[in-house]
Amino acid sequence: CIKLRSECMNIFTKYVKVLFLSVKLFTYASKTFTYVKLLPLLVSLQLIHVACVCAGHNASRDVVTLVKSVLFHRRNPLHFHFITDTVAHRILSALFQSWMVPSVHVSFYDADELKSEVSWIPNKHYSGIYGLMKLTLTKALPADLSKVIVLDTDITFATDIAELWGIFRKFTDKQVIGLVENQSDWYLGNLWKNHKPWPALGRGFNTGVILLYLERLRRIGWEQTWRLTAERELMSMLSTSLADQDIFNAFIKQNPVLVHQLPCFWNVQLSDHTRSEQCYTEVSDLKVIHWNSPKKLRVKNKHVEFFRNLYLTFLEYDGNLLRRELFGCPSQASPGSVQLQTALEQLDEDDQCYDFRRERLTVHRVHLYFLQYEYTPVEDSTDITLVAQLSMDRLQMLEAICKHWEGPISLALYMSDAEAQQFLRYAQASEVLKNRKNVGYHVVYKEGQFYPVNLVRNVALKNANTPYVFLTDVDFLPMYGLYDYLRKSVVQLDMAHTKKALVVPAFETLRYRLSFPKSKAELLSMLDMGTLYTFRYHVWPKGHAPTNYAKWRTATTPYRVEWEADFEPYVVVRRDCPEYDQRFVGFGWNKVSHVMELDAQEFDLMVLPNAFMIHMPHAPSFDISKFRSSSGYRNCLNTLKDEFHQDLSRKYGSAALKYLTAQRNI
Amino acid sequence: CIKLRSECMNIFTKYVKVLFLSVKLFTYASKTFTYVKLLPLLVSLQLIHVACVCAGHNASRDVVTLVKSVLFHRRNPLHFHFITDTVAHRILSALFQSWMVPSVHVSFYDADELKSEVSWIPNKHYSGIYGLMKLTLTKALPADLSKVIVLDTDITFATDIAELWGIFRKFTDKQVIGLVENQSDWYLGNLWKNHKPWPALGRGFNTGVILLYLERLRRIGWEQTWRLTAERELMSMLSTSLADQDIFNAFIKQNPVLVHQLPCFWNVQLSDHTRSEQCYTEVSDLKVIHWNSPKKLRVKNKHVEFFRNLYLTFLEYDGNLLRRELFGCPSQASPGSVQLQTALEQLDEDDQCYDFRRERLTVHRVHLYFLQYEYTPVEDSTDITLVAQLSMDRLQMLEAICKHWEGPISLALYMSDAEAQQFLRYAQASEVLKNRKNVGYHVVYKEGQFYPVNLVRNVALKNANTPYVFLTDVDFLPMYGLYDYLRKSVVQLDMAHTKKALVVPAFETLRYRLSFPKSKAELLSMLDMGTLYTFRYHVWPKGHAPTNYAKWRTATTPYRVEWEADFEPYVVVRRDCPEYDQRFVGFGWNKVSHVMELDAQEFDLMVLPNAFMIHMPHAPSFDISKFRSSSGYRNCLNTLKDEFHQDLSRKYGSAALKYLTAQRNI
Repeated sequence: CIKLRSECMNIFTKYVKVLFLSVKLFTYASKTFTYVKLLPLLVSLQLIHVACVCAGHNASRDVVTLVKSVLFHRRNPLHFHFITDTVAHRILSALFQSWMVPSVHVSFYDADELKSEVSWIPNKHYSGIYGLMKLTLTKALPADLSKVIVLDTDITFATDIAELWGIFRKFTDKQVIGLVENQSDWYLGNLWKNHKPWPALGRGFNTGVILLYLERLRRIGWEQTWRLTAERELMSMLSTSLADQDIFNAFIKQNPVLVHQLPCFWNVQLSDHTRSEQCYTEVSDLKVIHWNSPKKLRVKNKHVEFFRNLYLTFLEYDGNLLRRELFGCPSQASPGSVQLQTALEQLDEDDQCYDFRRERLTVHRVHLYFLQYEYTPVEDSTDITLVAQLSMDRLQMLEAICKHWEGPISLALYMSDAEAQQFLRYAQASEVLKNRKNVGYHVVYKEGQFYPVNLVRNVALKNANTPYVFLTDVDFLPMYGLYDYLRKSVVQLDMAHTKKALVVPAFETLRYRLSFPKSKAELLSMLDMGTLYTFRYHVWPKGHAPTNYAKWRTATTPYRVEWEADFEPYVVVRRDCPEYDQRFVGFGWNKVSHVMELDAQEFDLMVLPNAFMIHMPHAPSFDISKFRSSSGYRNCLNTLKDEFHQDLSRKYGSAALKYLTAQRNI
Repeated sequence: CIKLRSECMNIFTKYVKVLFLSVKLFTYASKTFTYVKLLPLLVSLQLIHVACVCAGHNASRDVVTLVKSVLFHRRNPLHFHFITDTVAHRILSALFQSWMVPSVHVSFYDADELKSEVSWIPNKHYSGIYGLMKLTLTKALPADLSKVIVLDTDITFATDIAELWGIFRKFTDKQVIGLVENQSDWYLGNLWKNHKPWPALGRGFNTGVILLYLERLRRIGWEQTWRLTAERELMSMLSTSLADQDIFNAFIKQNPVLVHQLPCFWNVQLSDHTRSEQCYTEVSDLKVIHWNSPKKLRVKNKHVEFFRNLYLTFLEYDGNLLRRELFGCPSQASPGSVQLQTALEQLDEDDQCYDFRRERLTVHRVHLYFLQYEYTPVEDSTDITLVAQLSMDRLQMLEAICKHWEGPISLALYMSDAEAQQFLRYAQASEVLKNRKNVGYHVVYKEGQFYPVNLVRNVALKNANTPYVFLTDVDFLPMYGLYDYLRKSVVQLDMAHTKKALVVPAFETLRYRLSFPKSKAELLSMLDMGTLYTFRYHVWPKGHAPTNYAKWRTATTPYRVEWEADFEPYVVVRRDCPEYDQRFVGFGWNKVSHVMELDAQEFDLMVLPNAFMIHMPHAPSFDISKFRSSSGYRNCLNTLKDEFHQDLSRKYGSAALKYLTAQRNI
């Protein structure tokens, strides 16, 4: 289904002509010479296929670093084939869709469907059942795919993958699989007393990097052969120790002519006790690093600093920089990118709101479920997810929020690639965060000068997995017990059958060392003492005045309030509520517009008598947009508001005119 | 003076043997073939020389990006020769000294000494006199240096510089200079009516990338020849338009056999109206990008996005990752790095304070004067620099501090390479910061898990350029007029001839919206109202209690106070005061130890009756060290304190025992 464009084919034809001309000119030279000299021209237009088995949250993070290292050096169009479990599929499909790298195609194959093919093999390796799945690639990948490079997720490329792909041309007619020799003594069987590895040719081969000639493998009946090999060996071995690698090696031992041995630098294996040093000290070139020790970056290797730096380069590399067109071979644009291009062309550069409209069209790369996530839905279907967004400067709020809210949480984090790694280290070192598996962390990668707050909010909202959501901000702490109280209110107010938004009254403290009120009574007395205020009492009372704090003081049952202009309460609503309007970027009107739309959709605003939340103090945020556009900002915000009002009227009819009137009266 | 180590020479000899063997084997192949095949082996051990003219703050930042792009791809030892003005010399020498990249040698040559060589040439190009200095390289560089690659600062490498160096071997015996053809029509002389460029061969050559065969140039009398050429042409042209490039081209026009034309991809010129596209669309390889438009990254070029990404890759690249040993050719270790290695080896990994001691030995890369800086010393030599350190999360304090302190400021910023660029954009967009030229910004690059607060403070302290310093923290705002008042106090208290530390009493507010007190009277009444507190009144009164706030309320003249344990006032002292003790990393005891040492050196602590400063509220800092080592932290801090006390006793004799006693009594 992937075709090179005609433009591209023309260039290809041109090079083929050059090839023939060159062959004539250099007939006196060795065959190798013309091959070496012209290979780069020929391969630079080929589509290269890469397959990778990826399961779970951690492998999904690892594979991104692998992909970045490949993209960084590549000059060819690429097609990635991912064998994924549900988790990795969800993460990687959203990632690649939002990454929009030109000339990169991605296909997914369901690992669950392949499990039965290998689940009968007892395996002791830490990679588990997924470690065996490389055996099934002839079956899993499309029948017309003839060649593929197979990579483990713990691989880093230091060169153009086209060089590796080019080695397929060096295969003899018989060879079906290209591999690097093992750089450990494992298969020699002398590591300890009674160490009995699977059979292998000498040191055996490592399967972290494989050139797989699928077409030929199918022709020699690979699917039956590897099974027979495995069954035969398992009779005495009982289980595999190194997963697929044991079976590949046993197969090769029987059929040595089928293997094409790759130079060692195509898979420099950094496990303990490795002989890899003998490989790389002899070459000035390192092409592929394989972190195949369970210790990963902490492996003992005297050159580990060098390898670690290579790895860190890509770990923290800004993935947006890889969104570049290839030269000489423009990609077949996806429908999404065509649409985007059209929208971009329709923008008027002289429009005073150009920057805002431009940002609105920016597609931010998204890495969903960046950390481990396990959500067990509550059975009574009243479950509520706390939804919020943040950037690095609010990270220190996370532990406190987790202590105040035991239910599921969906957080979108606006960060750079480097910050995402800093966050990862923070979360892995925090006892509080480490022990919480019901928090979904979704990274929205930074790009451009504005903070796309509503886009980030929507990512958190769309990835909540409960019927209800509590839409809050990260600098608020919910009262203790809010989660339980809200779930009870959802039942009590029959949220399942009525259209309601439950308002959680918001307060604020200007003090750092607040002893958090344990009850409404305690909160009220702190309010009287001046230790607490209603939220934004001093600077923007209108935002929460409609909550009617006076009434709330004595209320014991939920009460309905009317929408008023500029009302921006924190609410509990059904997860399928309207999204936030993404035209509002930077700051201003981002929550107001959302509550307005809830009202337009006739949600009843019900204030909860025993719920509260408190805003914690923080320094002003460091927001680039503020100083970049402060002058034009207000004018433009008004234009955007007007357009929003017009859209509301279009969507909800003349009733929505009230918002415009309300606005004008202020 | 730079010699390859014997180890390295052995490998070299080995390769030479391989070369001869290979030549025998491939005698039937073309000469070109063996050349192509073996060149990489041969050149990988050669020392490559690079020269660059660099003057001023902006060029010093640019050159770092160039150097990063070269280091990223290189596999050879390198020797950089920088022709610098005083500013660039100060910045780059400190940078390379702290960068400690193995197999990188750096030499500096004083541009001021070369000025007279070219100052007689009227030049209209924006590069000014420095644009002409490439003409003087045969004179400036060591007489025994035979070849050098000369680069402009606005160059980005996309390949190994050894490839370019290898082209020297392709020079015929006559050729002395390697250049890429100009990619603009400038020298064709048809850009506008009466456009009369200097003479050139066709389009002429661009001098952003030069292979300069110094040895041969000297032999043909280059120094006289270029002068004669320039003098002759200047008679009719009156001045150069493109600096050195005009003279090089006029010279080449006269002597075309001396030039070796390089393939266009070695200098892809991205100015407006460039023909560069014709170069790079024909090759899949781009080797060197030249941002030779005054518009730099904003140049109009339909592929600018691609080039910009390449540039941004290195702009934000973590320079610490380039501190890697080369394979096959270990570098001659510098005395500094040998010393460091010894110290590292002496550390005990089982020591509970290992991490602290390890951090103490980390050499952080430092970029002094990251932004434009112009300091005019005050004549009466009472001038005082405000000294502070910060990281990204306190950036928003800078404008406020600048508004409260009009004197010179020395700030050390602890940041990553990417953050440094974010800071640059922030500072360039801020009206307040843009207009201040007496603020020295010194970037200390992040590395490791601790915040090396005293190391960062020392960088700010050591780079203050006034006789006195006000040692403060970035989250304090000085009272209005403090700068003038302190300068008067310096005279009044005869700081020039006595050993004094002037204490500026510290207060704090817990409120965001503080109307800053205009006078001591106003401050006192706010104190009475509870709007202000003495600093850390609630959590750590001991830190400032010895200031004696009660006495200060009514004081009208400076009064002396005694040192007490845990006293950590903010003081004005002579710039040559003791440095901060760098063993205290992370948080805790970093200022206390400094004040203790001031006392040990018998500085009198004098409280100023009309000075004050106020701590502004902020969220708790996001400090990795806190959660990484909170358990062992306290124990270890005690160990470090003890060692500090022992060192004090050793340095200041038995009188210093009082600190130990004071400590134990607490």
